[in-house]
Amino acid sequence: MTHPLRLGIAGLGTVGTGVVKIIRQKANLLAERADRPVVITAVSARSRDKDRGVNLKDYAWEDDPVALATRDDVDVFVELMGGSDGPAKAATEAAIAAGKDVVTANKAMLAHHGHALAMAAEAAGRVIRFEAAVAGGIPVIKTLAEGLAGNEVTRVMGVMNGTCNYILTRMQSAGLPYDDVFEEANQLGYLEADPTLDVGGIDAGHKLSLLAAIAFGTQVDFDAVELDGIERITIDDIHQAADMGYRIKLLGVAQLTGRGLEQRMSPCLVPDTSPLGQLEGGTNMCVLEGDAVEQIVLRGPGAGEGPTASAVMGDVMDIARGFRMSVFGRPAAGLTKAKPAQAVTPAPYYLRMALEDKPGAMAKIATVLGENGVSIDRMRQYQHDGSTAPVLIVTHKVTRNDLDHALAAMDELDVMKETPVALRIETV
Amino acid sequence: MTHPLRLGIAGLGTVGTGVVKIIRQKANLLAERADRPVVITAVSARSRDKDRGVNLKDYAWEDDPVALATRDDVDVFVELMGGSDGPAKAATEAAIAAGKDVVTANKAMLAHHGHALAMAAEAAGRVIRFEAAVAGGIPVIKTLAEGLAGNEVTRVMGVMNGTCNYILTRMQSAGLPYDDVFEEANQLGYLEADPTLDVGGIDAGHKLSLLAAIAFGTQVDFDAVELDGIERITIDDIHQAADMGYRIKLLGVAQLTGRGLEQRMSPCLVPDTSPLGQLEGGTNMCVLEGDAVEQIVLRGPGAGEGPTASAVMGDVMDIARGFRMSVFGRPAAGLTKAKPAQAVTPAPYYLRMALEDKPGAMAKIATVLGENGVSIDRMRQYQHDGSTAPVLIVTHKVTRNDLDHALAAMDELDVMKETPVALRIETV
Repeated sequence: MTHPLRLGIAGLGTVGTGVVKIIRQKANLLAERADRPVVITAVSARSRDKDRGVNLKDYAWEDDPVALATRDDVDVFVELMGGSDGPAKAATEAAIAAGKDVVTANKAMLAHHGHALAMAAEAAGRVIRFEAAVAGGIPVIKTLAEGLAGNEVTRVMGVMNGTCNYILTRMQSAGLPYDDVFEEANQLGYLEADPTLDVGGIDAGHKLSLLAAIAFGTQVDFDAVELDGIERITIDDIHQAADMGYRIKLLGVAQLTGRGLEQRMSPCLVPDTSPLGQLEGGTNMCVLEGDAVEQIVLRGPGAGEGPTASAVMGDVMDIARGFRMSVFGRPAAGLTKAKPAQAVTPAPYYLRMALEDKPGAMAKIATVLGENGVSIDRMRQYQHDGSTAPVLIVTHKVTRNDLDHALAAMDELDVMKETPVALRIETV
Repeated sequence: MTHPLRLGIAGLGTVGTGVVKIIRQKANLLAERADRPVVITAVSARSRDKDRGVNLKDYAWEDDPVALATRDDVDVFVELMGGSDGPAKAATEAAIAAGKDVVTANKAMLAHHGHALAMAAEAAGRVIRFEAAVAGGIPVIKTLAEGLAGNEVTRVMGVMNGTCNYILTRMQSAGLPYDDVFEEANQLGYLEADPTLDVGGIDAGHKLSLLAAIAFGTQVDFDAVELDGIERITIDDIHQAADMGYRIKLLGVAQLTGRGLEQRMSPCLVPDTSPLGQLEGGTNMCVLEGDAVEQIVLRGPGAGEGPTASAVMGDVMDIARGFRMSVFGRPAAGLTKAKPAQAVTPAPYYLRMALEDKPGAMAKIATVLGENGVSIDRMRQYQHDGSTAPVLIVTHKVTRNDLDHALAAMDELDVMKETPVALRIETV
């Protein structure tokens, strides 16, 4: 048994408290597994007096996370404060400069500064691990960077925001409109202080950009993620997609093609019989595809004290066991800046539109689609009251360019009551 | 970039050939990821002349795997021959004695000799890794031993024999009896030379015993796995289970309770809406439960050249990156020999019986069940021709002891046309 691994933990919210509990309650088990003790030497948080249900008196207290990160008795700086900049970034940089390894759950910080932090860490011979930043308790970073290290990764997909999946599946099961379920999620405390982070796809987009960097050996490029939220999904979309054998998911997809790197986080239709289609509630799912392994699907809790602390501890235990790897699975200095794809992979699309209920309306739509090279696979017009006819179309595979032209031309027609909605149908 | 990692590969069947292809085709990618080249220096197989579709001329050839395992220019002995004893074991032992690390896909060898091999390897400061031995391309060992290292594992479950799952799901989808689908699987080359390894649950039992050792910190104990195969499952069982909302799976379950270590590999009923219930064809699935992470589900191909080679390469890359861990996740010297559970966790059971179609038959059955403390949740008698009435019962939760007494007493009754079948209903 060698010397203990000493942690300094900054941030004692749900996850930080969960990590403290695990280390206190399972000291023997962890020491046995790592073949050395894993201990906490110091902690830092905003309020020293708050009752967190754990005993912190054995640990030194630091008001300043930078001071914590640079203490002599800290080997690993565990950053659980959150926030892309500010104290989290300052303390992480200070930790690296002081020769500490870093474990973090901070997707926003890594999505924005991951490459620079990885460069700094690797120049200093330190590691940064961030399993808890993506898909909560699911060890997806480990699976992708280590388990599939013999693969050329072909595609990565994920439902990685439990709140959005809760909203979408709850709309379907309860037959409630978006606004009602959004409010319900809010009451349940499922939403971030700024709900756009969730329902706008930003939080999930952060995660996708980290997976893409590992999968394709590229520099993290969150700004290149095409983001579309779930705010425009109606209960009718959900019912009508279900009618045609699909479910709507806020789905992240990353793939590297001859056209460049595609990173998309957007509501998509997936077959209702697929593992993604069957995912209910707040659970997360990641689908990893490689040339050798074909397809691996990982499913588990995407948030919460226990699952997220479990992911943090996986990283801590790897460091305790002496495992040291490049932050993104290859030396950061060799990561290239990927060209964002100029055009995404062609796919079938689901189109929802509201037409004036007058003779010739459908003909005009069909003509515009045809003129723009969009061919119709299935079309449904629903029974309706009043003067607006709800029409759904599933197209054959089409380029987004052709589709965008068709949508623009349709929007010009005098029979369109509102801007049509187009959702990609992802093959899974 | 440091010195290359040099592999000696013994066994050039499907998996070995797959590994050679990956290393030849992706030399640059692997070197980038490991920050050092990964090369093959020597190979060994039964026939030197066989055309395997890969170029082997760059590698030294050894007829004897022991000679391969002990070559000076080999750092890692990659054992892909199979067989619990014989050359595989001799060469593995020789490799360890010669100071080599070992990567193997050999579940039978590890199920029978895993503890002794781990003791030898750790005494010599070497590692043995065996991701490919369990569930093909799914990185389940890595997830359990590393990703969930902060958890007390509470239960491990898995559908880990693709052939059995193919047979069971094909019986259902095609409505064919067991014998027909068994023959079909045989024609397709899905079965081992000794099919009992598959349909008798032995192969999957080997895998379960390895997962149990990692999960619970116990010495591998394959002999304590309760084995029951799928040979007695009829098409009627499958239809009737489906009728009640279940699917039948050859399911492995390991859990450590106050009664000792349970290791069961047997046909079980699982809810048809659960991830396990929805698993079709040859795909594998592992369900890992821990006190912090709750439940992680992993799904992927359980066999085949690419997936299994992917798992082997995951291990090779870990070693190339310098990751060294105890074989079963804790030092082998500290692993205890678990007491096999004297009684398995109580559960509801599905009972199928064929009764004489005469007055009072059901009353006798109901009486015997009641007298033995088995209470009935649901009962169905199906329409029938002739003198035999097919009867199904789903019990409430019952101890296996009570159930066994009830079954023995039922077997004595004069109304029973054949020995009843009892299948456990597993909560998932």
